[in-house]
Parts: sequence; C-alpha cells; structure tokens
Amino acid sequence: MKINVGDLRALCAGVLTNAGMPEAEAEIFSEMLVHADRRGVRSHGVMAFERYVSLIENGNMAKKFKYTAVADNPAIAVWDAHRSCGHVSGYYAMKEAIKKAGTYGIGFVGVRNSSHFGAGAYYSLQAAEAGMIGIVSSTAGPTMAPWGGKERKIGNNPLSLSAPASKHPVVTLDMAQSVVAMGKINIYRNQGIEALPAGWAFDKDGNPTEKTEDAYSVVPIAAYKGFGLSLFIDIISGILIGGATGERCGDAASGPSHTFAAIEPSAFGLALDEFKKQLGDRIDEFKSSPKKDGVDQIYMPGEPEEINYANAQNEVEVYGDVIEQLNALANRYGCKPLAAV
Amino acid sequence: MKINVGDLRALCAGVLTNAGMPEAEAEIFSEMLVHADRRGVRSHGVMAFERYVSLIENGNMAKKFKYTAVADNPAIAVWDAHRSCGHVSGYYAMKEAIKKAGTYGIGFVGVRNSSHFGAGAYYSLQAAEAGMIGIVSSTAGPTMAPWGGKERKIGNNPLSLSAPASKHPVVTLDMAQSVVAMGKINIYRNQGIEALPAGWAFDKDGNPTEKTEDAYSVVPIAAYKGFGLSLFIDIISGILIGGATGERCGDAASGPSHTFAAIEPSAFGLALDEFKKQLGDRIDEFKSSPKKDGVDQIYMPGEPEEINYANAQNEVEVYGDVIEQLNALANRYGCKPLAAV
Repeated sequence: MKINVGDLRALCAGVLTNAGMPEAEAEIFSEMLVHADRRGVRSHGVMAFERYVSLIENGNMAKKFKYTAVADNPAIAVWDAHRSCGHVSGYYAMKEAIKKAGTYGIGFVGVRNSSHFGAGAYYSLQAAEAGMIGIVSSTAGPTMAPWGGKERKIGNNPLSLSAPASKHPVVTLDMAQSVVAMGKINIYRNQGIEALPAGWAFDKDGNPTEKTEDAYSVVPIAAYKGFGLSLFIDIISGILIGGATGERCGDAASGPSHTFAAIEPSAFGLALDEFKKQLGDRIDEFKSSPKKDGVDQIYMPGEPEEINYANAQNEVEVYGDVIEQLNALANRYGCKPLAAV
Repeated sequence: MKINVGDLRALCAGVLTNAGMPEAEAEIFSEMLVHADRRGVRSHGVMAFERYVSLIENGNMAKKFKYTAVADNPAIAVWDAHRSCGHVSGYYAMKEAIKKAGTYGIGFVGVRNSSHFGAGAYYSLQAAEAGMIGIVSSTAGPTMAPWGGKERKIGNNPLSLSAPASKHPVVTLDMAQSVVAMGKINIYRNQGIEALPAGWAFDKDGNPTEKTEDAYSVVPIAAYKGFGLSLFIDIISGILIGGATGERCGDAASGPSHTFAAIEPSAFGLALDEFKKQLGDRIDEFKSSPKKDGVDQIYMPGEPEEINYANAQNEVEVYGDVIEQLNALANRYGCKPLAAV
C-alpha cells in the first residue's frame, strides 16, 4: 500500500516520543527508517520498527541518547553509548567524524555498547553529503561459521562506503559479508518456501544445503575472504574500540559496536570539485562501456537505491502486515494510524 | 629446487645494485621478494624479478627512490613517487604512516605514480610488527569488467589488512577483488591446460567460460560486491590521491597508486597488550570451535602463510625455470649465480 512519507515519519516519531524518546532523537530515528524504505531497502525500514520499539520496552535500548567519551584525540573518538539507540548514536558519531575530518582530513569515531543501527548507508551518505568519503562498519550477532568450522561464531558484519561524484548520484556500496542475510532465509521459512537457492546456507554440519528447514548458518562471500572481511570488521569496529563481537553483540547482551570514518579530499591535495569530477569521469567510463547481452544499463553501487529514493519523494510502498504492526503501535501509544494515500 | 634465502636475496640485491639502484633500496626490495616466497606467495616472489628488472631497463621504473610531497598534514601525506620502485616507496610510505599513527592514532599515506608494489601483505605486516593495525590497497591494471559490462575497465585491486594478536601469529587478509588473478589463468594458458574451473573467467561477451583460450576478464568476488570493492579502492587509493586507475595504471603509463594506513590501538583507549589479548581470545573462539568433517584445523587468514614463513627460515623452494631466469640476470649483471642447497 502507498503511504505518505510524512505520515510514516510522524507515526514512528509519535510512537517513539510517547515511549519516552526525546523529540529531536525520535525525528532522527524516524527519518532514517523512512530513508531506508525510500531507497527500497525494506529490511532496514519501518518493517523493523516493531522490533526497535520492543527493545525500548524491554529495556535493551536506552530511551535517551547519552554517551561517555572513552577516548578523544584529534582525529579519533570512542564513545560508550550505554545502549542508546544505534541510529541516534550513529547519526551523531558520523557528525563528529565529519567535524574531525574537516580539521584533520580524517575523522574516526567508534561507538560501543550500542544497539542495531539499521542501514549503514545512511551514515556513509552523511559523509558524502558533507563532500567527504564515508566508511562505516559494525559488528553483528553471529550468523556465520569461521571458514572450515560449522558453528555460528561471527556476524555477517556490514560495511558501507559512499563517495560524492559529479554528473552522477553518490556511489554507495552497502554490503554484508555473507551471500544473503539470515533475515532473508527467515522470510523463506516464515512463508513456508522449502527450497533455498544454492550457495546461501550451510546446515548444522557445515555442509551446503538448499533446504530452508536445514539452513543454520549463512555462507560468507567469496569463501574465506568473506570470513576474513568479517573478522577485520570485528577487529576494527569491535575489539579496537572495546566493543562486543560474536554472541556478545546480541540485543540482550552488550549490543553491537560500530565505527564511522570520514575522509576529506582537500587534505589530500585535491579540491572537492576536482575529486567529484575525477570520480564522475571514472563513472562515465564504466557506464558507457559495452554491456553484456540482456543488460540495459550498467549501474554503479547504490545507483538503483538512489533512483528508488528520488522516485519515493512523497509516498512509499509499505506491505499490509507492516502497516498492521505500525497501526497496532500507534494505537498503543495514542498516535494517529496510517491510511493509504 | 631448495635455495638458501641469503643467496637468493644476495643475487637480487646484486643485480639491482649493478643495474643502478642504491644498495639500501636494493636490499629492501630483495628482502620483500624473498619474504613473499618464504610465505609461499610465489606470484609476488622472485618469480616476478625478471619483470621488475625489465621495468628498470626500459625506463618504466626509476632506479633511485624519490618523491615529492603533494600533501603533508598531521595524519595524512600524499607522495608523488615519480615512478620509483613500488616496493621501496611502499616500505617508506608505511614507515611514515606508522610514524603519523604514533602521534595522531591514525596515519594515512598515499603514493601515486608508483610501480607494481608486489604483495600488499608486506606493508600491512610492517604496521602489525609496530603494534598497529595495517590497511593497504592499490589500484591495478584492468582485468575486470564493471558488473553488467563486458570490457576490462578496472583492476582486481588488492587489499591487505594485518593485526597483531597474543598467542597466535599476526592475522593478515591479503585479497584481490576477483575470484582468481589473471596471472593464474595465464599460467593455465602457458601450460596448455584447456579447461578452467567454473567461476573464474568471462569471455569477450561477458559470459562465463570454462575454456582457457576464451578467458578475457576475471570474475569479481561476490558478483557486484567485488566490483564495488574494487571501485572504492580506485576511489581511495587512486582518485583521492590524484593517482591512476584502470588502463592508466599500466607499467608503461602512470603506474599504479597505493595507500598505506596504520591505526594505533592506544589512541582508542586500548593498551596494545589488551588489544592483542582480546584478539588472541577471539581467535581462540574460532580455532577451538567445531570443525566440518574433513577439516583438520580452522586457520585464520594469513596463518598458513605465517607457517610457511617460519618453515622457510633458511631455504625456500624455487622452480627450475625461475632459477634459470635469475641466473641469466646474474650473468648479465656480473653476480654470483644460484646453486641448490
């Protein structure tokens, strides 16, 4: 069903405010959820709202953003977020990274004891909108086995990078280190689809399976390389900042741990306009190059999402069961329910 | 044939010195080549020496290391290396990144107009040996098509990360963004092997091929994700530092462009010993976890190479045709040829 984006934001912000979140923070959080839906990344949009509200209700997410600066150096800061909302902490952490990068060319802010921060792309896009390169990553609860092992020990730790370009939308690569997310397999399970595509999952013995019911862990991208990339995100976005990895970053444990980096081109001797021009020209080379049969257009990473976002300026598609969840929350918190556009 | 590592280094250093490279630089370069062989990464070892010498001979690599600092900020530097030897520039650039990280917690040095720098692992290991996390990447000549395209437009840009741990060897992930390197397909071609494993190569039309003779471009890891990772290495290690990407980074053009980053744990509020302990404990979790049938041991990224390195303390295996190449160079430059151990 098509829903007005303003109404969607207002419902989320209203529920959050009535659940005890300060209004400015509720607005940041709601904007980020709707932003993901507008980009077509539904898994990180309002579909997840009920789960976030339940984290507040059961005390696993602080209502009000607060942090303690564990380290604060010229280009670096580490915050203990005391289980604040990951979206709000992330928004402010990237703002701080951008500020540091404005002075030192590079800014790197870690946030530990956080909660699930949604789509990493939002934060790397914050940096791109400030004329910088953004690099964001996070630890996540375990869904993958170490390469050669069979037990879930590590998350498919997301990584998002963005960079601004002339002539073209911002380039954004927002990727997990597994072929698909466990959430996608759970959707198959919930819908009673028995067969999984090959290469998505391992069973409890660590062997490839195409049966939904036997899927236990997700397959890392490019075999050991995906495990290695997840391990280095554990190291940089987890261990380095004293944050949680593996099963310790679950909702009811310490929560995940994130890093937000911003890089300012002018500190490298390149004016922003020149950087954007060089990247725009490089994108031209790719997009104008010969296509495989059956390919209409060569897309840059994040380009389909930018097109979705532009097309969903006023309204966005929300599935019926998600609308039911949102309206149930609206009723519980005394907010106006949604109506189709 | 087993060759004494000291003899191997001496031959390379002798040839380089007699070809006009200053002795200290010839020693750095030779050590790095033998280092790769000791780790079992032959493609970046002395097998490549003849090619490097020919770069000097035909004027595509400067004999003496020199650079101009294009930018020099607290945490950041960009050097134009004027086509110096990539290994020597890289060695000094990572030293500078480590120095900056010692003061600012993070150091980031870019080197443009370089030449092929060999195995990225050497540089990220330099950082790990200094008690830091090392992150190294480089642009490379085009061997991959943009996702959806069919023409080679981008390199399989290598990325190497290292981090020191207690109880275990340094963890190192040194990976290209393609399933295999074009060099591996060329070995099949040179050996007359007609069939390639599935998933390695595309033909000129961008379709998967298992025929060696039809292989034209290499397949990015994880489909569009591998293209996206290579693109962001083009952006950070190329465009950001005014360096070359795509066909412009060939031997006879501007040469590749690299970045060397070092991160100092203490700037993040974590003493080095504590960082190493946390990582050592995390590695224990992986290595002690249940294994798949048929798996003897769960290895961390870089662990097999560390074992190779320790086992090759005195001598290293070099193939007969490579020994012939090296001895031909030794004869040409008046150095002592190799003999089997």
